[in-house]
Amino acid sequence: MTLPEEHTVITADHVIYHFHPDLEAKWHVAPHEQVEIRCPDGVHGQIRTEQDRYVAVDYDHINDAVGPIHVAGAEPGDRLIFDIHDIQIPQDWGYVLVIPNFGLLQAKVQEARTKIVPIKDGCVHFDGMRIPLDPCIGTIGVATHEGRYNTVIPFDHGGNMDTTAIRAGARVHFPVNQPGGLIAMGDAKAVMGDGEVCGTGVGVPINIFAHFEVVKGGRLSRPVIETAGEWQFIASAETLEQACILANEDLIGALMRSKGLPWADAYMLTSLVGQLRISQVVDPLMTVRMAISKDYLPTLDKMA
Amino acid sequence: MTLPEEHTVITADHVIYHFHPDLEAKWHVAPHEQVEIRCPDGVHGQIRTEQDRYVAVDYDHINDAVGPIHVAGAEPGDRLIFDIHDIQIPQDWGYVLVIPNFGLLQAKVQEARTKIVPIKDGCVHFDGMRIPLDPCIGTIGVATHEGRYNTVIPFDHGGNMDTTAIRAGARVHFPVNQPGGLIAMGDAKAVMGDGEVCGTGVGVPINIFAHFEVVKGGRLSRPVIETAGEWQFIASAETLEQACILANEDLIGALMRSKGLPWADAYMLTSLVGQLRISQVVDPLMTVRMAISKDYLPTLDKMA
Repeated sequence: MTLPEEHTVITADHVIYHFHPDLEAKWHVAPHEQVEIRCPDGVHGQIRTEQDRYVAVDYDHINDAVGPIHVAGAEPGDRLIFDIHDIQIPQDWGYVLVIPNFGLLQAKVQEARTKIVPIKDGCVHFDGMRIPLDPCIGTIGVATHEGRYNTVIPFDHGGNMDTTAIRAGARVHFPVNQPGGLIAMGDAKAVMGDGEVCGTGVGVPINIFAHFEVVKGGRLSRPVIETAGEWQFIASAETLEQACILANEDLIGALMRSKGLPWADAYMLTSLVGQLRISQVVDPLMTVRMAISKDYLPTLDKMA
Repeated sequence: MTLPEEHTVITADHVIYHFHPDLEAKWHVAPHEQVEIRCPDGVHGQIRTEQDRYVAVDYDHINDAVGPIHVAGAEPGDRLIFDIHDIQIPQDWGYVLVIPNFGLLQAKVQEARTKIVPIKDGCVHFDGMRIPLDPCIGTIGVATHEGRYNTVIPFDHGGNMDTTAIRAGARVHFPVNQPGGLIAMGDAKAVMGDGEVCGTGVGVPINIFAHFEVVKGGRLSRPVIETAGEWQFIASAETLEQACILANEDLIGALMRSKGLPWADAYMLTSLVGQLRISQVVDPLMTVRMAISKDYLPTLDKMA
């Protein structure tokens, strides 16, 4: 794609390790202003060789998020859209970690392991296999309404959702809880599977090219991803089942609001055309999303 | 597609309500013999109008499975493949049910509801929406090694896995626990989303056109779906997290066996290119599958 020559560059000069209500804006941008956000990798450069091991998740020095970014005009009750044009990886290698007491199969993990994988020709090279790059943003969230969450934790404000669908071409809708939204992001992966079972994808720094939009009113309970053809309602909770319930309820609410369906009909419809998908199972809250084609839900707002 | 004129027809003259080790074969077929299996809907015709309500899951009269079918040459330790050519729906309507004390949002369900939806022009018609048909087989399993499971329950033998990927074009690999495999199936849906959140898809009878193959040796722990481009390792357990662990372990085992990867490398690879997907969250065990492209796992068996 052709990137705009003039854009605002936002760097890791300032990062946060917690999302909370009292974040202080470090950058100010306007809706539709073209921005480039340069994010370090999810361990802020602490892993450079296979001898660098991560022996425990250090909740105060991992998953730092670049920001907070204040978007003009975004007020509590509004919806903030982050429209991702492109994600570039300014590095020719990435890391994959196995961390004791972390990850889906942690009961089988005896010791920390680090694998450094080359990136070239559009692929991650892993044990002779070529895996096409498909970068996503692992941590992205806004200032909370209340409560303080480490950037490792995903919750209703976003945070460490580790959702592969937050990639170039997606528009991510966030609730605005505080003036300006105060969004921050980082913890990118060059490629990752749904689940992120070992606890990481291929960790890399990224440069994100994007813009923001503000929808007055229309606040959501939780983040929603918009793709060309789908809405994906994200929810995080202590168990996958609890997260599924929240995502299903959010999708039903949107169908009732937008299309005027009765609750039972909306519930049935989600059973026929709603797709529950796993985002991650390790963070340590669980994240899922429930997707629906825009054929059945053209807009999040009330239809004319 | 063109169906073979000569094929063996298997009907609902005999159905089972439990999978167990001592199933008695009712049909005998040979590998590569063309079969048509005619299955009633998942409630065996009990629901015909919107006044017919299902007030509780009756574990003895629901999800009956046509069979058992004995496949010549299949011995314990082998793998039985069910290759699905086509699934046809011989009826112009289906049902969707909301059942008290069943389904993901059962805490919000006050009363039973039935919706009868027309099927025409290749679509289910639901409140003015057209949903393209995509039939799948909800219940399909083999005689168990040990233990007796109602056909409503999914487990290592298969059973009520309610997995959308068990559709035309798929090949489903089962462990053979008893001579002939003794497979049985039913509980079809005209269309369903991943999750089956309200507890049903669009219930319909189906005619399945298929054949069986036997792979000597190569027994699996649990069913695996093969598509043109993927392997999908299915697992059912009391929680989604437990099912995810089993599916991830099975995929790691296949990567170690087939490609000789060390455990930690295989685990990392599943985090990069393994896709955890939800099958269903209501049955009442939970079913997931972990998919991988054949680019990374060309065969289930040891590579040459």
